[in-house]
Amino acid sequence: MKKILRMTRQRLPSTFDVLANDQYGKARQVKVSGESPLTIIVDNQEIVTLMTLGNYPEELAIGYLRNQRLIDDIEHIASVSVDWEREMVDVKLKAEHAISDLHQKLSKRTVTSGCGQGTIFSCTLDKLYDHRLPDTQLKQSTIYALLKAITEYNEVYRAAGAVHGCALCANENILMFVEDVGRHNAADAISGMMWLEDVAGTNKIFYTTGRLTSEIVMKVAYMEIPILLSRSGITQMGLQLAKDLNVMMIARAKGKAFLVYNKEEQIIYDQIPKTSTI
Amino acid sequence: MKKILRMTRQRLPSTFDVLANDQYGKARQVKVSGESPLTIIVDNQEIVTLMTLGNYPEELAIGYLRNQRLIDDIEHIASVSVDWEREMVDVKLKAEHAISDLHQKLSKRTVTSGCGQGTIFSCTLDKLYDHRLPDTQLKQSTIYALLKAITEYNEVYRAAGAVHGCALCANENILMFVEDVGRHNAADAISGMMWLEDVAGTNKIFYTTGRLTSEIVMKVAYMEIPILLSRSGITQMGLQLAKDLNVMMIARAKGKAFLVYNKEEQIIYDQIPKTSTI
Repeated sequence: MKKILRMTRQRLPSTFDVLANDQYGKARQVKVSGESPLTIIVDNQEIVTLMTLGNYPEELAIGYLRNQRLIDDIEHIASVSVDWEREMVDVKLKAEHAISDLHQKLSKRTVTSGCGQGTIFSCTLDKLYDHRLPDTQLKQSTIYALLKAITEYNEVYRAAGAVHGCALCANENILMFVEDVGRHNAADAISGMMWLEDVAGTNKIFYTTGRLTSEIVMKVAYMEIPILLSRSGITQMGLQLAKDLNVMMIARAKGKAFLVYNKEEQIIYDQIPKTSTI
Repeated sequence: MKKILRMTRQRLPSTFDVLANDQYGKARQVKVSGESPLTIIVDNQEIVTLMTLGNYPEELAIGYLRNQRLIDDIEHIASVSVDWEREMVDVKLKAEHAISDLHQKLSKRTVTSGCGQGTIFSCTLDKLYDHRLPDTQLKQSTIYALLKAITEYNEVYRAAGAVHGCALCANENILMFVEDVGRHNAADAISGMMWLEDVAGTNKIFYTTGRLTSEIVMKVAYMEIPILLSRSGITQMGLQLAKDLNVMMIARAKGKAFLVYNKEEQIIYDQIPKTSTI
């Protein structure tokens, strides 16, 4: 943890008990996942309002600003203060690192906006395309060990559903795990944690329960993580980006099954399951 | 279909064949869902770039502008032209209905932005809270008939995964069904279709494979649909909004199981399954 950064630790409860009627007409106490608005403010300028589970609001804010390329270096941040009463997180930059063209950067979003749900401020991928990720080998046995280890997590999902989980892994070790109402938030929070803990993406594996769309591939590449592993499927543009950026892409990974969509030559098949007899 | 509205019919293929290696190290031909950027332009002003499957780009554009409250009446639209070469959809308004304060409305997004992934231009729910939806009864047998009927759909999901499906239903009849890479796009496209076909939300059921977060509840309420049915879970804020707006909320609906989170007193339990013996 960077000592120079003053940071609150304001976590919301992840789940809430509510009553719901089941198919027998019986009232049951069930859990639902939390969801709260959180407005990110940088030096008194509103940036965006995200809907979040609220587990890691400080990390989410930092990671969001990092993945949106609004802040280049975590050392530029002086403090991060979450206030759930106001549903706001105030990010203060060090005076010498104030973003002079913040207003311009924000207005740019109004123009180019999107790349999916309007979350990316500029669609210019030029920066990303500059550095393709290095080749990294991965053992099939590591995939299986990781998928097994990950089942211990997904707490909120198991209790209440309606969340996605993302994890940063080094081989079969899960270094960080975040659940949130959206896979983008979970990925951003991981990115914030990585910055805070000074953890590089090199040789790491990014696991997600969510789909591998273009935005997720972009974020992971930006974090310099060379391997993407998902329980869900992929999109064509996600795959195209993975090819362009040299990201290993494994999806539909559940139990012993998985599909490698990119960089399959870097997989070491050391634990091929017995084919099921017909 | 409104005759006065000139509209292209530019659909992209939903799925693409790619090669992927499975857990046996064997290359297999599998399908992945499409994903393309589409920038919505209203009277030469860029609004947003969405990532979409591209099945119903015209309806998506119209529904997005409707759900964002940027256009109040479909009669105000003169033409909708999709050009996939440019990845753009041009929406032209009738001269007398040009939005004079469009630039201001767009800049407002930069300030209040979000409500989740920055897709909603203004967070003011005041308009919505003005009219709570009317009570609408629903038979359990209708839920089951609908869940059965819906299994015929979800084409792209079955073939390629990585998409969400949304449907507009009248009792067990599926009037409209849209899949897209995001549940928001699918909901917006349904909204656009409803406008085009002049179909009211009254007495309808909105089905989605996705989670019922605050944004989806807001959109559905804005379409005046009183009943929400989801295969996935819900969030606390989604539930709160459903209560405030009087939307019936049924989630985790799969096979014979479901949970009613709001307006359970309006369910007619006419097909209670036999409890499983222990």
